[in-house]
Amino acid sequence: MIKSALSVLLVLVAISSAFAAKYIPKSGKRVPQTLSRGWGDQLIWAQTYEEGLYWSRSRNKPLMVIFHLEDCPHSQALKKVFSEDNEIQKILDEDFIVLNLVYETTDKHLSPDGQYVPRLLFVDPSMTVRADVTGRYANRMYAYEPGDIKLLISNMQKAKKLLKSEL
Amino acid sequence: MIKSALSVLLVLVAISSAFAAKYIPKSGKRVPQTLSRGWGDQLIWAQTYEEGLYWSRSRNKPLMVIFHLEDCPHSQALKKVFSEDNEIQKILDEDFIVLNLVYETTDKHLSPDGQYVPRLLFVDPSMTVRADVTGRYANRMYAYEPGDIKLLISNMQKAKKLLKSEL
Repeated sequence: MIKSALSVLLVLVAISSAFAAKYIPKSGKRVPQTLSRGWGDQLIWAQTYEEGLYWSRSRNKPLMVIFHLEDCPHSQALKKVFSEDNEIQKILDEDFIVLNLVYETTDKHLSPDGQYVPRLLFVDPSMTVRADVTGRYANRMYAYEPGDIKLLISNMQKAKKLLKSEL
Repeated sequence: MIKSALSVLLVLVAISSAFAAKYIPKSGKRVPQTLSRGWGDQLIWAQTYEEGLYWSRSRNKPLMVIFHLEDCPHSQALKKVFSEDNEIQKILDEDFIVLNLVYETTDKHLSPDGQYVPRLLFVDPSMTVRADVTGRYANRMYAYEPGDIKLLISNMQKAKKLLKSEL
């Protein structure tokens, strides 16, 4: 009696756990997408530009916007050194709002010299895009290569000097 | 001689691995944020509304937009049944573009009767917000509770009948 009750229970458990099985796509299980997309798993990322601007204003921290593409080798190369550079990660975590996008926004201020990737823009808490904070390349002023990490850090320091405090 | 060379090597390895240690915030290690935010880890989520619209148009699939908040118990309750419902997950994966947002967009069409969470809107590939696809509650027409999952599925079927094909 107890045995048969147990086996019924066992079947019920088996059935319910079969129903509880999570959905898996026909093409196979996927790795969940992260908001960081590999640019810094320990950072707290804004999801959208509007959200980034809101946080930037309310916390009085500059916003860094990274435009990149998953299948662009230049983006990938920069991402590798960027995500592994603890100095960058620490400064971003403590002093910046961060946003990475694989899709352009409708705001033209974020593409002062065109739309290309990788492209890094800083936005002041006053909501002014810091077009004055540029990289090394005259034809793509907001592009950085893996070798430009030191320049990027010095540009982050520039962006941290808020426009308001300069008045 | 070999021994001392080995120990030098060992020290070098130790130093380099110490430098290779990943950045960890002062407040402790964080779990990386996912784009799904728990609404379906196996789905491919758009990050922004613009991206969702683009995919919707180019793939001719309706877009589902979920407005929610991480600290809203109603959002959490709906998310639990939503993410565990394999029928919903399968239909969304195969026939929809999906986007979940914790921050409102600037597009007023996405809040036909106000901004509240949870709120689920469908957008046709023609970029028309389907204000006609509503839930059970007269004062919050786009809200769903955990008990409304069947209604939500039937609304998804409604949204799948594209506006163009109705002409």
